[in-house]
Amino acid sequence: MSGRKVPDVVVRRLPLYLRTLVDLDEKEMPIISSHELGERSGVNSGQIRKDLSFFGVFGKQGVGYNTLHLREELRRILKLNRQVNVGLVGVGNLGMALIHYNKAREELNPEGNGLKLVAAFDIDQRKVDRRVDDLQVYSVDELPEKIRALRISIIILTVPADAARDILAVCLENGVNAYLNFAPVKLSVPPHVRIHSTDVTLELESLAYYH
Amino acid sequence: MSGRKVPDVVVRRLPLYLRTLVDLDEKEMPIISSHELGERSGVNSGQIRKDLSFFGVFGKQGVGYNTLHLREELRRILKLNRQVNVGLVGVGNLGMALIHYNKAREELNPEGNGLKLVAAFDIDQRKVDRRVDDLQVYSVDELPEKIRALRISIIILTVPADAARDILAVCLENGVNAYLNFAPVKLSVPPHVRIHSTDVTLELESLAYYH
Repeated sequence: MSGRKVPDVVVRRLPLYLRTLVDLDEKEMPIISSHELGERSGVNSGQIRKDLSFFGVFGKQGVGYNTLHLREELRRILKLNRQVNVGLVGVGNLGMALIHYNKAREELNPEGNGLKLVAAFDIDQRKVDRRVDDLQVYSVDELPEKIRALRISIIILTVPADAARDILAVCLENGVNAYLNFAPVKLSVPPHVRIHSTDVTLELESLAYYH
Repeated sequence: MSGRKVPDVVVRRLPLYLRTLVDLDEKEMPIISSHELGERSGVNSGQIRKDLSFFGVFGKQGVGYNTLHLREELRRILKLNRQVNVGLVGVGNLGMALIHYNKAREELNPEGNGLKLVAAFDIDQRKVDRRVDDLQVYSVDELPEKIRALRISIIILTVPADAARDILAVCLENGVNAYLNFAPVKLSVPPHVRIHSTDVTLELESLAYYH
């Protein structure tokens, strides 16, 4: 199955399957059917089988998936079997909220999920050289140096819209290929780079349909 | 085409089409082809035609869509042709960030997009009866009364995970059917209710695939 390009919608469902498997007690449920995995993750079981088929053959027909094995395989596929270092740029309200959220997540689950927030960056000198929830805040001028030294491979952008493009350019130059963008701006990147954007306005507009 | 249930993935793309049309100068481009709309919104043109076919026939084959007409139709479909009132529960860092963001959006675009943030709520008495960026903060105890009085039909949940279920229950009881949830918790609702959840951890985990 190698060589087939995996659609992003499929990649986006994998963490949901992984979380469902992590939340399971593998002693109580050493084998899980795609039906049961579907019930628990809220995804149709046919969809699950189709999604996983992109990456190989994991389950036995009529039996199900080995819980522990599938968990490890999903970690490997998502490259979460080694630590992935994350940087956050923009320590405003939203940046602060994400840092606090990350701290709470780490306290709940000290083993972690492979992702590690290792540095924050801001342009405001009053915020620089301080710590927020044990996380060091650096100047954005230090981005090139710190991306390399701390091996940062995912960047969270919580900067204002007018700063997003410049920060993105610096991070791209320094080899960061994955971004979670909260700035309300459309960012263009080369094909090998991935940006997931969270746009609250678009979310609310689609919710209006259901109100 | 009425009666066909519209998949949520389709509904979620409509605001993107609407934004693309709003950003267009309709005098320069009174008619837009699905190809051009696709280029600008980043969606495949075949997908656009398929999505719109759920709601009727809008364009002329080989000609395109009337920009103004399609804009108005999308507003009508999304029920954004009348004001939709939104409440926010949880004035922590994330809630504050969204209130500031909303204020900035309103200043950029005073006409608005149909959505109006009309009230915030918090459990902390020190935050209650104050204003944040001109937005009144009420006690969560006032939720039932204010949902009715202010005709709130969408709720943004920016409360901690352990508070989300209780707040949701109160809002459901008072007839709110659409939610944007930022609490890292899976919320169950009746079939006629819609929750969109933004889960930063799941987003980052899927990004790890691309790092």
